Amino acid sequence: MHRIWRNCHVVTMAGGRYTAIENAALVTHGARIAWVGPASALEAGGADEEHDLDGAWVTPGLVDCHTHLVFGGNRSKEFELRMQGADYALIAAQGGGIASTVRATRAASEDELYGSARRRALHLLRDGVTTLEIKSGYGLDLPNERKMLRVARRLADTLPVTVRATCLAAHALPPEFHGRADDYIDEIARRMLPALAAEGLVDAVDAFCEHLAFSPAQVERVFQAASGLGLPCKLHAEQLSLQHGAALAARHGALSADHLEYLDEAGVEAMARAGTVAVLLPGAFHALRETRKPPMELLRRHGVPIAISTDLNPGTSPVLSLRLMLNLACVMFHMTPEEALAGVTTHAARALGLQATHGSLEAGKMADFVAWKVEHPAELAYWIGGDLPKLVIRHGERAVVEP
Amino acid sequence: MHRIWRNCHVVTMAGGRYTAIENAALVTHGARIAWVGPASALEAGGADEEHDLDGAWVTPGLVDCHTHLVFGGNRSKEFELRMQGADYALIAAQGGGIASTVRATRAASEDELYGSARRRALHLLRDGVTTLEIKSGYGLDLPNERKMLRVARRLADTLPVTVRATCLAAHALPPEFHGRADDYIDEIARRMLPALAAEGLVDAVDAFCEHLAFSPAQVERVFQAASGLGLPCKLHAEQLSLQHGAALAARHGALSADHLEYLDEAGVEAMARAGTVAVLLPGAFHALRETRKPPMELLRRHGVPIAISTDLNPGTSPVLSLRLMLNLACVMFHMTPEEALAGVTTHAARALGLQATHGSLEAGKMADFVAWKVEHPAELAYWIGGDLPKLVIRHGERAVVEP
Ligand SMILES: [Zn+2]
Ligand SMILES: [Zn+2]
Repeated sequence: MHRIWRNCHVVTMAGGRYTAIENAALVTHGARIAWVGPASALEAGGADEEHDLDGAWVTPGLVDCHTHLVFGGNRSKEFELRMQGADYALIAAQGGGIASTVRATRAASEDELYGSARRRALHLLRDGVTTLEIKSGYGLDLPNERKMLRVARRLADTLPVTVRATCLAAHALPPEFHGRADDYIDEIARRMLPALAAEGLVDAVDAFCEHLAFSPAQVERVFQAASGLGLPCKLHAEQLSLQHGAALAARHGALSADHLEYLDEAGVEAMARAGTVAVLLPGAFHALRETRKPPMELLRRHGVPIAISTDLNPGTSPVLSLRLMLNLACVMFHMTPEEALAGVTTHAARALGLQATHGSLEAGKMADFVAWKVEHPAELAYWIGGDLPKLVIRHGERAVVEP
Repeated sequence: MHRIWRNCHVVTMAGGRYTAIENAALVTHGARIAWVGPASALEAGGADEEHDLDGAWVTPGLVDCHTHLVFGGNRSKEFELRMQGADYALIAAQGGGIASTVRATRAASEDELYGSARRRALHLLRDGVTTLEIKSGYGLDLPNERKMLRVARRLADTLPVTVRATCLAAHALPPEFHGRADDYIDEIARRMLPALAAEGLVDAVDAFCEHLAFSPAQVERVFQAASGLGLPCKLHAEQLSLQHGAALAARHGALSADHLEYLDEAGVEAMARAGTVAVLLPGAFHALRETRKPPMELLRRHGVPIAISTDLNPGTSPVLSLRLMLNLACVMFHMTPEEALAGVTTHAARALGLQATHGSLEAGKMADFVAWKVEHPAELAYWIGGDLPKLVIRHGERAVVEP
């Protein structure tokens, strides 16, 4: 099926750069883009269908490259306690925090997890997301990590979205390994990762490198196991303190290092050399009332690609809109609207290893795009909240998302 | 028509306080509430219809008590310039800022203003808003202020929402009065307000008291004119500096003083004595990257009712979701979810002088409520972005909002 999409303007992100074409057209052939350019250069004939986009601005489909959207329960009561002034240590001592999500996730059936994750995914899809990363990391044992990753695969099978499943078994220490973190790392490296990879459930491997999670040495063992299985790495790094995790990730050729509020210049340089994407998560920064911002000028100066994501999770970032993160990235991290849009398209695709096929509108890539009814692309970062009118096309077809 | 609404939990806000009833029911008679209470106390019989709310949490319909949602154009290009580092003075010198919105609003026809305002209002209504304040203040002369206020009345006539129209002619100095601010105040007091009031277009009178807008003495003349016409007052006060506008507003028995980042204790005391509501606007605080917060502890200690609103406007707060402001108020202003919910219901209704009929679920009040599909009311403040599933009832009927 050849389709022509006329009467629009396009931000292509071709070659990884913000590039706008006014009075543009697209041609799709099946699930792929056949041609993008000025409408005046469009050659006549041959289309099976023509679509009038009514002056919309077309961008690549949005890519949410860091989410934890499969989980049991939610932590709104904990949020309420925190907003009433309870400190996080007290909440954790009472069994709250990530431990409560691990309990709820372990207690939930795969169908229950699928149902709640699907509802959250629909929020993102209605907002323009066509590619989504989903991490495990609330199971923390083989059957429950498997259960989470199977839900991620099932979402891919049942919704109009491309899903990358990331094994984050090294997210927190499960209670049954209390005081034996190295043993849990062993369990991940020798048993969990090989088994989950063999079942085809893992596209990448992630870990949380922080004083309250795992040390760089422990992370390194996880990364070595991933490499042995041929899986790419990612890392939660330098969120609350400088652990030199980003440099470690870069040494392992990681796809991305994420959060990065405490990243130093040596880490930035290492990421630049390795081509590791910096994934910034302004929702968590906001919800945790952080004040230390990622080193934007260093990242720019060294040419590190900067992606933005929701970090959708029940504890520190209950964010249901990736578009809203554009505004937060601009206002809180001093990004420009053009940088922010690149951060949820081309650079986010790179953070998932999908840059050859996703994240920009170029001939041969997947025909995933959003036609926004706005007058200027900066409106995506400008309007705060709301559901901007749009048409979402995935793999050349209108993405219909029923509740 | 008697309707029973069963199988729900209710936050009533009765008496202006957060009050939750689990396993509750409501009875409505036409547009009003006939009864609210525990389901076990519901007397049998007499209903024409019964509705099962499927375990939802019911809150009063949300009240957005401070918006500038009628305007021409938008300022996304200015937002882009600011995020690229341009300072506000430069933008203003190039004809940007509020002057650009005044030009665009004057140039727009009433129908054009209605169309764009309606689209923005629909975002708020889909989010659970059943009562809305709309200010003029981008016309700045009699015909254009009239045009804006007529749009506000027309929105009330055509959408399922109660609208209060506020004349904010004293928002900025129009170019034709350059250097003659006192003359413009004269024009407002002697000609514009009396004419607009006589046409039934004005429910309240507002002004912007700030070094870059109008002085307390000028505001006082506007308030005296309002009093002479029997109209209540409101004031944009202490947003960027302490001008003692809140105390002035309180002396005039104002419904509300709004923004208040620089409010001092004398102003808080004056507001408490007068029963003037503090309307906080976290969207503008966020978008302007402010760091000085309203004096929350003083407001609480003196018992000033605290409302929250979107401040929806094209320059400093392009906010399309009132629910999102609950999260911002909690995270940025350290309010609790219960305080925040009171801030968009009972206290917001008081800020519009509607406390006798709106803002809480009590027998005799309007049957305006939202049944939220959540497990805990704090989820309204917890989830960041997204469109929470809900049923909106206004005046006892389902509020159907077509795009
Ligand atoms: Zn994360
Ligand atoms: Zn305002």
